[in-house]
Amino acid sequence: MPAPAERRQITGFSNPTVKFIRSLREKKHRRREGKLLAEGLRLLTDAREAGHVPEMLVLSTQRDPHPLLADLEASVAAAGGEVIETTPDILSKITGKSNPQGVAGVLAEWDTSLNAIDRTSADIWLVAQALRDPGNLGTMLRTGDAIGAGGLILIDDCADPFSVEAVRASMGAVFTQGLVQARWEDFLPWLRAGEGQLVAASLRDAVPYRGAPYASPCFVMVGNESQGLPEPYEAECDLRVTMPMKGRADSLNAAVAAAVLGYEVLDSLERG
Amino acid sequence: MPAPAERRQITGFSNPTVKFIRSLREKKHRRREGKLLAEGLRLLTDAREAGHVPEMLVLSTQRDPHPLLADLEASVAAAGGEVIETTPDILSKITGKSNPQGVAGVLAEWDTSLNAIDRTSADIWLVAQALRDPGNLGTMLRTGDAIGAGGLILIDDCADPFSVEAVRASMGAVFTQGLVQARWEDFLPWLRAGEGQLVAASLRDAVPYRGAPYASPCFVMVGNESQGLPEPYEAECDLRVTMPMKGRADSLNAAVAAAVLGYEVLDSLERG
Repeated sequence: MPAPAERRQITGFSNPTVKFIRSLREKKHRRREGKLLAEGLRLLTDAREAGHVPEMLVLSTQRDPHPLLADLEASVAAAGGEVIETTPDILSKITGKSNPQGVAGVLAEWDTSLNAIDRTSADIWLVAQALRDPGNLGTMLRTGDAIGAGGLILIDDCADPFSVEAVRASMGAVFTQGLVQARWEDFLPWLRAGEGQLVAASLRDAVPYRGAPYASPCFVMVGNESQGLPEPYEAECDLRVTMPMKGRADSLNAAVAAAVLGYEVLDSLERG
Repeated sequence: MPAPAERRQITGFSNPTVKFIRSLREKKHRRREGKLLAEGLRLLTDAREAGHVPEMLVLSTQRDPHPLLADLEASVAAAGGEVIETTPDILSKITGKSNPQGVAGVLAEWDTSLNAIDRTSADIWLVAQALRDPGNLGTMLRTGDAIGAGGLILIDDCADPFSVEAVRASMGAVFTQGLVQARWEDFLPWLRAGEGQLVAASLRDAVPYRGAPYASPCFVMVGNESQGLPEPYEAECDLRVTMPMKGRADSLNAAVAAAVLGYEVLDSLERG
């Protein structure tokens, strides 16, 4: 076991480092700094195992000892990062939660351009357009992990995948799934420059989602929570499918639609 | 068109009626009063059409006119309810949103005992145990509507289905789906006193969820977001099924799991 890193002690609420870390709960500060904040041993261990070692680690003086925490601390120190020890109150202030998990970390954001993914590495990719809810976004990453997707491609103005809420809802999949942020006018030429079937859940000119002719790599796209996909986007799809709607509503929650459709695509491709 | 109801004007933030309505955003006040708060013309119209006419309607002086709003106001007046007109600022204070929709309503809660549902009225019922997230709860109601479920049965300590968040996430399905709140020790004897197959997504002693022998009425159960179902609850199930998990995680978001499983049950029962 490596020796524990040297830990800087912070005891003051107005400490500039505390203010800096806390500021990362807001998108404008994340964007400016190119960093994100993640909380909890499990999330931070997922990040480390995926190669995203925190640049800064904040430990509560009242944390429970844990071998994974020792591993995490050693990784941070080995990578030249900083380890800070502070009071539970200050950690609460940083995380904005009254009962914070015993550790938080600051990580560098990474490349989320279309160049960052290799479409041939997976049979399924999830695509979300103008998805506004960070919980839905994180849930889609989590679902992508479950169905063996390559990752999530965020089209147009979506919620920030690096927000505390999205990272938490992803259950760590934000660190392991591929992640792209792109405009539609850049995504479409990229898609058409290689193999790929673009599929959307739609009410227009659609076939039943069960038994539809899915093909790998299959890009499963859902739209904005209240508007759905713009009609021109749907028109570009290679396949429009519809799910049974037995009740009054004509749509599902966006993350639910992606999951139901994603599992059908998985089953279809596995049956071959 | 019926004549518009007489509208009480409220212009003061400290008005007791404003305080009362605003208090319904908190569970303890909803519980004590037996009332809930719902916002927006669409939700309130869904409620009215399902027979839940608001007891009190709050309109913004800056609302847009709409035929459905006139219908709503007429229904409230005809049922002896009260119609209040107030400023956008006060309506914002009531709803807690900076950009409130032009109308909010107070409704009486209704019977959510097991006696309130007829299991033979639908082939599928969703069941959630200790579900804590109001968004997940509302999403399950919305999914239930889509798959033609009879309703949602909440077991043990779940989020409040009458919270503003759950009502909103349900997209109105809270008013049209059956809704039950029960303890496990009451639910299980009720279930066994009649027909019904209890199915859970599980990792223990489970068969693949695709092609499993589902039977109507099928009760599809998911567990708490972080703990899953208690083992004794799983042991009582007639069928335990497992969904593919291709990645690192061993579970899906609870509302996603219910939807993927619910759509499979729907397809299975429809194929017969």
